[in-house]
Amino acid sequence: MHSRTLHKVSIYLFVLLIPGIANGILAQGYPAINSARLEQSLLTLATFGRDADGTPNRVAFSDGDIEGRAYAMSLMMEAGLQVSIDAAANIIGFRAGTEPGLKPIAFGSHIDMVPHGGNYDGCAGSMAAIQVARVLKENAINTRHPLEIILFSNEEGGVMGSRAMAGELKPAALQVRNSTGYTMAQGIQRLGGDTTRLANVQRSTNDVTAFLELHIEQGGILDSEGIDIGIVEGIVGLNWWDVTFTGKANHAGTTPMRMRQDALLAAARFIQAVNEEALRMNGTQVATVGRIEAYPGAPNVIPGEVTLSLEIRDLSEEVIFDLYDKIVARGTQIADESEVAISFLKLDTTGKPALTDERLQSIIERESEALKFTTKRMQSGAGHDAQDMALITPSAMLFVPSEGGISHAPDEYTLPEELAKGTQVLLQTILRVDREWD
Amino acid sequence: MHSRTLHKVSIYLFVLLIPGIANGILAQGYPAINSARLEQSLLTLATFGRDADGTPNRVAFSDGDIEGRAYAMSLMMEAGLQVSIDAAANIIGFRAGTEPGLKPIAFGSHIDMVPHGGNYDGCAGSMAAIQVARVLKENAINTRHPLEIILFSNEEGGVMGSRAMAGELKPAALQVRNSTGYTMAQGIQRLGGDTTRLANVQRSTNDVTAFLELHIEQGGILDSEGIDIGIVEGIVGLNWWDVTFTGKANHAGTTPMRMRQDALLAAARFIQAVNEEALRMNGTQVATVGRIEAYPGAPNVIPGEVTLSLEIRDLSEEVIFDLYDKIVARGTQIADESEVAISFLKLDTTGKPALTDERLQSIIERESEALKFTTKRMQSGAGHDAQDMALITPSAMLFVPSEGGISHAPDEYTLPEELAKGTQVLLQTILRVDREWD
Repeated sequence: MHSRTLHKVSIYLFVLLIPGIANGILAQGYPAINSARLEQSLLTLATFGRDADGTPNRVAFSDGDIEGRAYAMSLMMEAGLQVSIDAAANIIGFRAGTEPGLKPIAFGSHIDMVPHGGNYDGCAGSMAAIQVARVLKENAINTRHPLEIILFSNEEGGVMGSRAMAGELKPAALQVRNSTGYTMAQGIQRLGGDTTRLANVQRSTNDVTAFLELHIEQGGILDSEGIDIGIVEGIVGLNWWDVTFTGKANHAGTTPMRMRQDALLAAARFIQAVNEEALRMNGTQVATVGRIEAYPGAPNVIPGEVTLSLEIRDLSEEVIFDLYDKIVARGTQIADESEVAISFLKLDTTGKPALTDERLQSIIERESEALKFTTKRMQSGAGHDAQDMALITPSAMLFVPSEGGISHAPDEYTLPEELAKGTQVLLQTILRVDREWD
Repeated sequence: MHSRTLHKVSIYLFVLLIPGIANGILAQGYPAINSARLEQSLLTLATFGRDADGTPNRVAFSDGDIEGRAYAMSLMMEAGLQVSIDAAANIIGFRAGTEPGLKPIAFGSHIDMVPHGGNYDGCAGSMAAIQVARVLKENAINTRHPLEIILFSNEEGGVMGSRAMAGELKPAALQVRNSTGYTMAQGIQRLGGDTTRLANVQRSTNDVTAFLELHIEQGGILDSEGIDIGIVEGIVGLNWWDVTFTGKANHAGTTPMRMRQDALLAAARFIQAVNEEALRMNGTQVATVGRIEAYPGAPNVIPGEVTLSLEIRDLSEEVIFDLYDKIVARGTQIADESEVAISFLKLDTTGKPALTDERLQSIIERESEALKFTTKRMQSGAGHDAQDMALITPSAMLFVPSEGGISHAPDEYTLPEELAKGTQVLLQTILRVDREWD
């Protein structure tokens, strides 16, 4: 937040830096997005949903979420969109196309955040999508296809809105409560949805021409390599397990080192094994132990039981389960050697790997290169609404750099000129898909 | 608890099994302790201070503690002792000696327990001490020295009573609250002590001839080796540290394995290093990590900070700090390699190593051998009241076997015949010290 004013100068300069720009129209005939206005919309959105000390806290269903959504809807109306809220509380801005029978090109993201999150995750892509519509209106550009700008509801609490659209929102999920205290069911009603009509939200593979989502990277690759646009080849799948080690709690003073069945010592070896196995395989799979609890948890008692979380992510479910099998083998060996028991409990997690559409990837690449922006094909390590949209329509994502790779934290930041570059590519990708696809 | 009735038969048989016994007087002229009565006193004591489901819970200052103390005092009076409560709430049973000017021989233990502890830790030695006095009375044996049976107050919450007697109870300790909700200061008043006169409790090196404590081993050595009596050569000292690893919390999906500063991975390597270093040194030192917390503690976030407890115990402070130095060196290297920070915070812990008196050890050994009981010289891995008494008078401890090495748990158990053997040795040791020492 503190460094934002430093960038104000560059916001206004950016428009002039795009090669070949003149009077708001770029060399290839595309209208230029207004980066100053885009940045202003992000800053204004950030004023809704804050703690008393200014920390961002716009969790889905909170008052701040309701206020932020109202602001976003006002921007959508200014952009000439016909705004509605579907039964899953997704905000939909519709713009008619010129050719009857063509299905809409959809694009968007979300504006809710994790507790004490940042102002860019989701918000950057949402404000970018609205600015695309605004520029089209200002430049009186009509598309063949209808356009739908979608701001998905409650992305951070289980990609609620996009799952509903993909027909994947399970009844049990509606009872999940987030940090506001509301269940999803209550939250949907609060945001203007209707849980009795959720089935109506579901789209089929024939309802949408394509889906595009601009998002911050949430990792440090683009920033550290100085690259403008990340072209997402796929969104990793994710699996969670609880792993429990059961040894024997005993007096730490009277039990000799060689007579112990220390569950924490076995768990410590396991945590290293998880890391080693994830590093040993080729590829970009990640495995993480983020939570650990030792019982009884006193300094003078040898831990008799340890429970820890295991998360594995990869673009391929085969790789996930291959790595899991290797980890189970290591864990079993460690448990045997340590004379403790080990057990794995699979948790119900949602994220299946999703590949993005190769034709859309190519269009994003061509439009980026035309603008002389550097690109990198990459995978998304985080889950996104596009993951569920990919189940029903050709989908793609473009990433803009996250400064320092920081995400899900108040320090999250993306340079205005980098966001403007991404938005320009988004605009041009939509117009090319509109021209070339039916 | 469940297996106790199985042993009832052997209780009554035990008296007959001691070699050379006739009419309650053993071959060497010593009176025999009554093991059935001893066991009955332990079982009755166990009825005071239980949860509704029967789980032992006689924490110091609780109603159960007050009731248990009242029962113990009634037994002491039956044994002809002159009973008083000192300012630190220690219960003292006094028996006059025949030679003026001789200082008392003291012996005893404690009857408070850890939350959901067992009925033998402290209680076995306390009931044994009272039975010794009872047998002396019944057999009209007068000792040259006065005798003092001491039931120390609040052993489990910081060896309160014995520290007060050694002049080591710090004012800050009086504010420490235990699981009953009472501070030590409040607890002392509740038990009939007087915090304004604590200084009067302190004994000097000239006030006591010797101190003896019978206790359950709390480890599995005697039980697994089938030995009757453990002769404690020393009580280990104990030091506690909090160790903190500070890395960088980050998104578990978007942060590649090689770009992580995972505090938990470093902590896991450290836990192994603690174990390795403790095993690598010769000797019986122990090092334990019993508590661990990882922040923020979510399955999908790489831990940015981990705090864990480090405890080291040994008979020699030099060994403790030598091992600590080795652990610090390993920890520092691990932290460097893992690109995380490490810090050690020393906590204020009380237990300095204490060596027991060699002449007393020899007497315990000779009396055990005379009874054809097997013995083993060993150290005490747990702290005891004898540790503080050793600061002011020649002290020694004898251990009886803990079945399965279980302690500080409801399953804690010692066979009645093993307790009776230890009590017989205690009685004979006291009478020999009374004869041979001035």
